[in-house]
Amino acid sequence: MISSPYLLYLGAATDPLAVKTARGVAEWRPQLCVGQRRLPGCEVTLGLEDLTVAEAAARGAKTMIIGEANAGGVLSAAAIPEIVAALEAGLDVASGLHQRLGEIPAIREAAERLGRRLFDVRQPPADLGVGKGVPRAGLRLLTVGTDCSMGKMYTSLALEREMRARGLKADFRATGQTGILIAGEGVAVDAVVADFISGGAERVSPARHDGGWDIIEGQGSLFHPSYAGVSLGLLHGSQPDALVLCHEPGRPHMRGVPGHPVPGLRVTLERNLEAARLTNAAVIPVGVAFNTSAFSDEEAARLCAEAAAELNLPCQDPVRMGVDQIVDNLLSCFEASSSHAAAGR
Amino acid sequence: MISSPYLLYLGAATDPLAVKTARGVAEWRPQLCVGQRRLPGCEVTLGLEDLTVAEAAARGAKTMIIGEANAGGVLSAAAIPEIVAALEAGLDVASGLHQRLGEIPAIREAAERLGRRLFDVRQPPADLGVGKGVPRAGLRLLTVGTDCSMGKMYTSLALEREMRARGLKADFRATGQTGILIAGEGVAVDAVVADFISGGAERVSPARHDGGWDIIEGQGSLFHPSYAGVSLGLLHGSQPDALVLCHEPGRPHMRGVPGHPVPGLRVTLERNLEAARLTNAAVIPVGVAFNTSAFSDEEAARLCAEAAAELNLPCQDPVRMGVDQIVDNLLSCFEASSSHAAAGR
Repeated sequence: MISSPYLLYLGAATDPLAVKTARGVAEWRPQLCVGQRRLPGCEVTLGLEDLTVAEAAARGAKTMIIGEANAGGVLSAAAIPEIVAALEAGLDVASGLHQRLGEIPAIREAAERLGRRLFDVRQPPADLGVGKGVPRAGLRLLTVGTDCSMGKMYTSLALEREMRARGLKADFRATGQTGILIAGEGVAVDAVVADFISGGAERVSPARHDGGWDIIEGQGSLFHPSYAGVSLGLLHGSQPDALVLCHEPGRPHMRGVPGHPVPGLRVTLERNLEAARLTNAAVIPVGVAFNTSAFSDEEAARLCAEAAAELNLPCQDPVRMGVDQIVDNLLSCFEASSSHAAAGR
Repeated sequence: MISSPYLLYLGAATDPLAVKTARGVAEWRPQLCVGQRRLPGCEVTLGLEDLTVAEAAARGAKTMIIGEANAGGVLSAAAIPEIVAALEAGLDVASGLHQRLGEIPAIREAAERLGRRLFDVRQPPADLGVGKGVPRAGLRLLTVGTDCSMGKMYTSLALEREMRARGLKADFRATGQTGILIAGEGVAVDAVVADFISGGAERVSPARHDGGWDIIEGQGSLFHPSYAGVSLGLLHGSQPDALVLCHEPGRPHMRGVPGHPVPGLRVTLERNLEAARLTNAAVIPVGVAFNTSAFSDEEAARLCAEAAAELNLPCQDPVRMGVDQIVDNLLSCFEASSSHAAAGR
């Protein structure tokens, strides 16, 4: 697998959302990160020490992770000499972009010449097939959202941490590049052949018999004009027993597509539940996770309380409030009906 | 592009649905087909003369089209020596399977040795990107369905033929392997990277300014647990002005997934309209196309009349009744509001 520790490459990113890959690794595996590499013009930081590739290598870094992502999944031109420099300094390089590192001649040649490894975590398994929709054993929770980049991965990891802290069996199941870099395994469902989206989701969360939960990282939104197909296939393949709805109050429009308003919480939840019932008729919502980073504590508390009242579900910001109420409700729903999970299959 | 005329390879297929690729080419381009190639055990026919590859070559065939498709999109082992024989007899080979012809060493080596061409029509354009959902000029009709293999391609081609017979500008836009073999161009949206489904649909039906219609071939169903993601992305990327709903009365369950019932007409239409409004708020339904091949004339007429009354839309079986009423309604809806199409953009 990918060797740690890591140097996180941010390039010349100016949009905090563009470095969510690096941010996720830094936040959930801080002990594996020796620093960040930024180019002139970069306006974001992860709070790590700024290092050149040579400095990072001297401090023991084994892999540079490309932490910058754009909508098309293509490497920026400025990244190529940095990657070559990292290879020359002794590091492997890992990327979650659609474009493969090995497709770029300068990178491929340097890696071959130096004997370094290139990891493209979006490369799907070669033997993936179509989803079959056959009910399978186990308990699964999927995070869904009103839009992309709403905190679905963060929420999923927070749920895993909270459940493990209570002594429960819970495993984060990664479906995106950052999640895979954090978990060490998974399927990037947005990168599979379109026919195999639900098949990829079935692969990510296979049948389990130990009574534990798979916490599946959601992707995109049923209401996003670019990516809704991925979200729907993931929903069907996941066969979730429980949904957690993720949302960022105040976002002006769907990410990347001005003019497309963010849908309401209720319609988002209803459409996700309806679609999810196709492969698991017993699916229920158990909570709402808000990203309230743009608001004060008081405003955040009010926004969460309003959403909780509207949907009759616990609503928390995982960053500032944790997810204890959501986990309480999850356990309450599924303890009250362990017959539910067993009889439903 | 692909050289005609064609020899259509059916292999040892036993399920008529498995040879829908070959059937489509034979039905819509009969003048280009010299015969069919069947192996022992084959239980289906296209009504073409049975020829060996040598016989087909002697009659002038230029390309053997692999007309057999299974759910996984993988070539059956028995096809490989047949393909090599076709190459040796002087034919090119074209395939719509997920698995590339050139991935199979025996086929690749024979093609290289003999200077023949291999066409993989599912290979997506290399420069495809994410869909943007930006409104574009033109009039577009998309066929949608309760399930896969309901006649969406056939209906689309029948609409094109009927509209052209009336002197209208109308162009079939192919989104699947058979459609591409018929149209000579298109994007196999089930074969693109999952993130690019709606981008592929946008590519298939670019902006047009001549007042003509793009008739876009639908794929799958929003209610199919294997393929719904493809259907949703195609719907969003197509930005259809008009939908035609395709259905086969009496089908016992969703294709390939026993236990999953076929959804009702009304809920299918409502969910497709609702999802389509995300990228074209003015979308309307204009007709219903039934595959009534399992029924008598009287039963077919009754089934269509019932559906027409239920949905207040013309309902016809394109094979036995044509699509004149659907085209009448389409023109009525969009003549009555040519301001609709112009003002809506």
